[in-house]
This record gives sequence, structure tokens and C-alpha cells, in this order.
Amino acid sequence: MVPIMTDHTPTAPAYATVRLSPKADARAIRHGFPWVYSDELVLDRRTKALKPGTFAVLEDAERRPMAVVTVNPASRIAARVMDQNPDAVIDGAWLQAKLARALAHRSRLYDQPFYRLVHAEADGLPGVVIDRFGDLAVIQPNAAWSETMVDVLADAVVAVTGVAQIIKNGEGRARALEGLPEEMAVLRGDAPTAPIPVPMNGATYMADVMGGQKTGLFFDQRPNHAFAASLSRGARVLDVFSHVGGFALAALAGGATQALSVDGSANALALAQQGAEAMGVADRFQTRQSDAFAALEALAAEGAVFDVVICDPPAFAPNKAALEAGLRAYERIARLSAPLVAEGGYLALCSCSHAADLTKFRNTSARGIGRAGRRGQVIHTGYAGPDHPLLPHLAESGYLKSVFFRL
Amino acid sequence: MVPIMTDHTPTAPAYATVRLSPKADARAIRHGFPWVYSDELVLDRRTKALKPGTFAVLEDAERRPMAVVTVNPASRIAARVMDQNPDAVIDGAWLQAKLARALAHRSRLYDQPFYRLVHAEADGLPGVVIDRFGDLAVIQPNAAWSETMVDVLADAVVAVTGVAQIIKNGEGRARALEGLPEEMAVLRGDAPTAPIPVPMNGATYMADVMGGQKTGLFFDQRPNHAFAASLSRGARVLDVFSHVGGFALAALAGGATQALSVDGSANALALAQQGAEAMGVADRFQTRQSDAFAALEALAAEGAVFDVVICDPPAFAPNKAALEAGLRAYERIARLSAPLVAEGGYLALCSCSHAADLTKFRNTSARGIGRAGRRGQVIHTGYAGPDHPLLPHLAESGYLKSVFFRL
Repeated sequence: MVPIMTDHTPTAPAYATVRLSPKADARAIRHGFPWVYSDELVLDRRTKALKPGTFAVLEDAERRPMAVVTVNPASRIAARVMDQNPDAVIDGAWLQAKLARALAHRSRLYDQPFYRLVHAEADGLPGVVIDRFGDLAVIQPNAAWSETMVDVLADAVVAVTGVAQIIKNGEGRARALEGLPEEMAVLRGDAPTAPIPVPMNGATYMADVMGGQKTGLFFDQRPNHAFAASLSRGARVLDVFSHVGGFALAALAGGATQALSVDGSANALALAQQGAEAMGVADRFQTRQSDAFAALEALAAEGAVFDVVICDPPAFAPNKAALEAGLRAYERIARLSAPLVAEGGYLALCSCSHAADLTKFRNTSARGIGRAGRRGQVIHTGYAGPDHPLLPHLAESGYLKSVFFRL
Repeated sequence: MVPIMTDHTPTAPAYATVRLSPKADARAIRHGFPWVYSDELVLDRRTKALKPGTFAVLEDAERRPMAVVTVNPASRIAARVMDQNPDAVIDGAWLQAKLARALAHRSRLYDQPFYRLVHAEADGLPGVVIDRFGDLAVIQPNAAWSETMVDVLADAVVAVTGVAQIIKNGEGRARALEGLPEEMAVLRGDAPTAPIPVPMNGATYMADVMGGQKTGLFFDQRPNHAFAASLSRGARVLDVFSHVGGFALAALAGGATQALSVDGSANALALAQQGAEAMGVADRFQTRQSDAFAALEALAAEGAVFDVVICDPPAFAPNKAALEAGLRAYERIARLSAPLVAEGGYLALCSCSHAADLTKFRNTSARGIGRAGRRGQVIHTGYAGPDHPLLPHLAESGYLKSVFFRL
């Protein structure tokens, strides 16, 4: 194990001070709401001049200290609460305490060290996502403060978890909103030279942490993979938008007689194939590289029928502006996939769109199923797994929903 | 096995005809909405005279046949769709087909025959609930048609499942709304003379199908029991409103070091105790017969601390009139239970109130936790299990929600 860091701070740094405007909801922040929007902060010249990521003591309109925050004057979320204690010092020891608390939860949940270790605000580290793959961790420092402190953060991760390798994944929308550049970097240890085998739900997934989507694997669907697997004994399974085989390989582990993964990415399907080989189920596994809509139409034309069909598309409605078009795309997915489901079989439709809430998404999906001349009952609704906690104040925005229909 | 019934109907019965009013939403019904409200039906003298439970052919306002329905002119839900085929004949063979379809789903889900076999509208049998306990089934015929046909229904259940005993449970609110009397009866076989051991999630529950609440056991919480169990290895667990030990015994099966069940009913706790003895975990199990609120206050006064606390109260807000008082009661539960949770421990709060939707219930719970001076992240939201399917049109009314917080 790596020794615990000695990171004594002899004197508290003199944090700058920022102030809530009188119209801001100080009570919500005292009750745990983690953000201060730009129109709730007194943006005087001094505050506007603060470098993105600067720590500051937040005062209420009466100048009483409330919390330590990280400030980004250019962002719509102008300040994020780091600690409700206004005397807190954000240093390596502070980070280690947060990480230890996050680790205790995951260690209770999972037998093996493969999970989302830190899920941003709800784990007390605003804007920071850390996924763990055994001895390797991938950090997404999506807030300016964490970009500045990324080395201290990496040391703290090593100290708390003992991982040997740390990758920094600086890609994706979130960083652009914070004005951070896109980049990948190896922070500790060596870059992995091969995909990392990840055990989940009895399956083996191959994660390409350097070249894959997000951090290389989507841990969030784990409980929904498990539920699909529980339906798949003796079943023919179709997994559309399969990525590295999330649902298909779990279904094979659950006893599916055959599974077909459809994805547009040859790289993702190659990783799925490697996973199936590692599991010894390659004889029951097939892949098809195709646009998903085209594949659904082609399979219908071929007269293909499956007992379990799962469609887990990318976010069609990532924001309000895209909502209408997104819902139409979800309806089309439902309409094209329903005809492929055997009578009495199952159709799982997933959405990772923030803007499409559960009711809208479920109704749209039911409409699509109806337009295909089928009827469905809802048998299960699943969200992201418990390694993706949410603050109650932000729980409405739980982005991932998987609705399982029986047709 | 019992031979399949021969239930040939030589000539179709001449069903009465009822008609939608022009302002009714015929399209919703064609798309699967299962109910016709009393202000959507032409309630002429002839229709008003129909005996509750009578089958009829529903016509649209232009007198085109749409479906076979069951009529109850005195109910707010004046007609319920039995079959979208207006030529359907509702007889033993028809019931067997519905039951076989429902059974196929449960057989796929569960290794052992203990589950909700029929969940009313979503399983195509309006107002009928059937729970299965191995060789015994408990029927709740909560709609007038099923009261009239209860013998044909019992025969069909025997034919499809092979159960030897059938109990009719005619208690509860739903029957009163349909104008049906309260009664218990043994329809087939003998009345059980002892509680029935029910295996779920590795635990053993004792179901008293003659004298218990509802059908003797709540199958709906099964996945939430399982999730609580996944948090309980090495944990001290408190199960408030425990009934026959739903969460406590699952937690012990999951490796809890100790579990305490609190309930107001001595009978329920005696059954929980018998379950613990059957599992061989009685040395780790305690019960306390008490009002739940009083017990939470007493435990706090005793300085008791638990790693996992679950509160699964009865419906505090069964209807809109009771919503405000119900939410206050849920907040009080959260406020009184949060202080009993160890730092970093878990608090599961459940609601089976139709009127309190998930957002209201979660916000109320978070407020109660806050009033106790604690903070929580939402790590999991669970609903009733997949043997409790929902029609998509009625899915908003999914009554059961279990929200798991980490404090």
C-alpha cells in the first residue's frame, strides 16, 4: 500500500471573499443546495477578476461566512460549494477525507474494485468524476478547481485507494462549459497497453480507458444490465447501441442462448468480441456494425425475432432545445424495435437525456410501441447504479432511465 | 398436474351493448387505456339497470363495436376493458389464456413459485389480484365481474398453475368501492393450518394467508429488500413498520450482524420471529412491539445507532385529501429516523401512497433528514417488483417507491 500523505498546512490560506446578492436563496444553500448561479452572486470587479477555480469564502448578504466555494465568474454556475464549513482548507488531507468516504460506500457495494468512485457534487467533489478499474483510476476534472489541483487530487487518490495508474480524461462537453481544454494525460504510472478486463454481473467487459467513450466503460447501467440478464435465461437477445457489449454480455452471462450486438463503432464491437472471448461465450455472440436505425429496419426485413431487445442510445435530448427532436427519435427507436420482440417478450428502452424526464420518455416509448401495433406493460424502471449518488436537490436531473416493457 | 379444463362455449353469449358518449376519448381506449369513466358512457336507463359486473360490448359514439367491457354503472369507473376484440367471449378458456401469459412472465423471473401471479389491469384481468404461495393461491376479486365468476376463475387458476389450495380474500378498500362485501373463503382444497414458509432473497418469511394483512405477505418490496440486503453485510439494521420482517430478515440473509424489527402488531412480529428461527438467525434478531414513532424516539433516547435503517410505513397519503397530513407524517418519520443512522450509514424511506408522487415524497424525506441536522445523498430509488406490472397509461400511479439515502 502507498503511505498516507503528510500534507500539513501550517497556516490556513487567506481565501478571497465573495458575497451572495440579497435576492439569492441563502436558505437553500444552507440546506445543502450546492450551486450559486451567476445572478445570485455579487459580481463586483474584484470577484470578476478571480481566476476560474479560485477558492473563496462565501458570505451571505449580511456578510456572515457560509461556506468555502470554488468560483468561476465566467460560468452560469458562478460558485460551487466545496465545504459548508467556512473555515475549511481545501488541501490533500481534505481531498483524502472525501475520497475515503466515497470509497467506504463502494467497498460496501461491490466485491471487486470496479466502479464509479466519485460522482461529482453528490460525493462532495464538485465537477469531478473518477472511475476505478482495479489498479487504475480515470479522473475527469470537469471543474476549473480540479484542473488546477489535479496533481494533489491524483496523490490523494493513490493514497486512499492504492491504485498504481491514473489517467486524466479531459474530453467532453462539461469541460468546454468551464473553459477547459480537451486533453488526455497519464498522471501516475504507465499508460495501459491493452484493454482492461472489467468483471460486472458475471460478464467480462473490455475497457479502453485511453481511447474509449467517456472513461472507457459505462458503470451506470450495471443494475439495468443485471435486470436484463435476469430475463435472459434461454433467450435470444438483441443489444442495439451496444458499445462494448453492456447488455449483450450480461445477458450471455445470465444464460442467453444467443446475443447480437449492434453498434456503429467497429472499435467498440471489437472490444465486445474480446469480452465474449474472455467469457468463453463467443460461440453464442454476434456483432453487426451498422447505424442502429438501419439495423433495426434490416432485421425486421430479415424476419428476425428476439425474446429480449434492448436499445440504449446516446442522449437524443441532451438539452431543452433538442427535446422535441429527441422525443421523436426515441419514439422511432420504440416503433422500429417493437416488431422484433417475440410475443410475451421484453423490450428495454433507455434514455440518458437530461431533458427527457421519465414520464415524457415512457409515454413516448409507449406511443412508439403502439404505432408498431403492439402493446406493452411496464415491468421495471431502473436508474443509474448506487455508485452514482445524487444530491436530493438535484435528483430530478437523474439522467439515466431504463424502462422495461413486456410486449 | 391437474388436467387442462375443457370449457367449450358452444355459442357466444349475447352480450349487452353500451355506448361511449361523443365527448369520450375513444382514441385513448383504442390505444390501450383500460377504463371508461362514468361521464364518458351513455348511461341510459337500460345501461343503468345492468347488474355490476355484467359483460357488454362497448361501442363508440358511431355505434362501431370496440371491445368487450365489464360494466359497473354505480362506479366512477363505469366500464373496464376486458378484451379489445369485441367478439371475445369471457369464459374459462379466456381466463386460462390470460393466466398462462401471466405465469410465463413469473416463471421466467423466479426460480420458486412465490410471487404476484396477477396484478389486475396490467395482466389483463381488471380488478383481480392473485398471489401465489407455492401450492396455494390467494385471489382478491376486487371487481364485480370477478366476484361473479370467482368459481370459474378458481378452476382456471388450478388448471394453469396446478395449485391445490385457493383462498378468496375479500377484504380491503377496493371491494367496498365496487359495492362488494368483506369476506374470506376457502375456494379449493383445505385452509392452511400453519403459516406458509416463503423463500425470498435468501430469507424465509412466514405468511399467514388467512389472518394477515392483504394476502399475507407483501411481494412488492422484493427488489427493495434485496437492495437493502446488499448494503447490510456486517451491519446493524433497524426495520421499522416491519410487518413479518420483510427488510430485517433479508438483511440477516445478506450478512447483517444484528437486526431489530419494530411493529405495532404482536402477530406480525411473532411471524417474523418464526421466520428468523426457520433461517437459523434468531440469535441475531430482535423484535420490539411498539408504535413506530414512539419506538424511534425511544431508540434515540437510548442512544441506539444502526448502519442501515428502513422505514416502510402504511400509506399515510392514500388519497389527495390526505396528502398534506401524509407528507407531514413522512417528514416526521425521516426526522426521527435520521438520528439513528451512523455517519456514512443508510436510510431507506418507503411510501406506498398513491397521492404522494416520487418528487414530493423524496423532497419531504430530504427535508426531514435536514431537520434532524443530517445530509443525505440519494443512492437508489426502487419500485414494486416486476411481478407487479403497470400499464404505461397508468404507470404514473405506481404507488410504491423506496428511496435509499446515504447520510
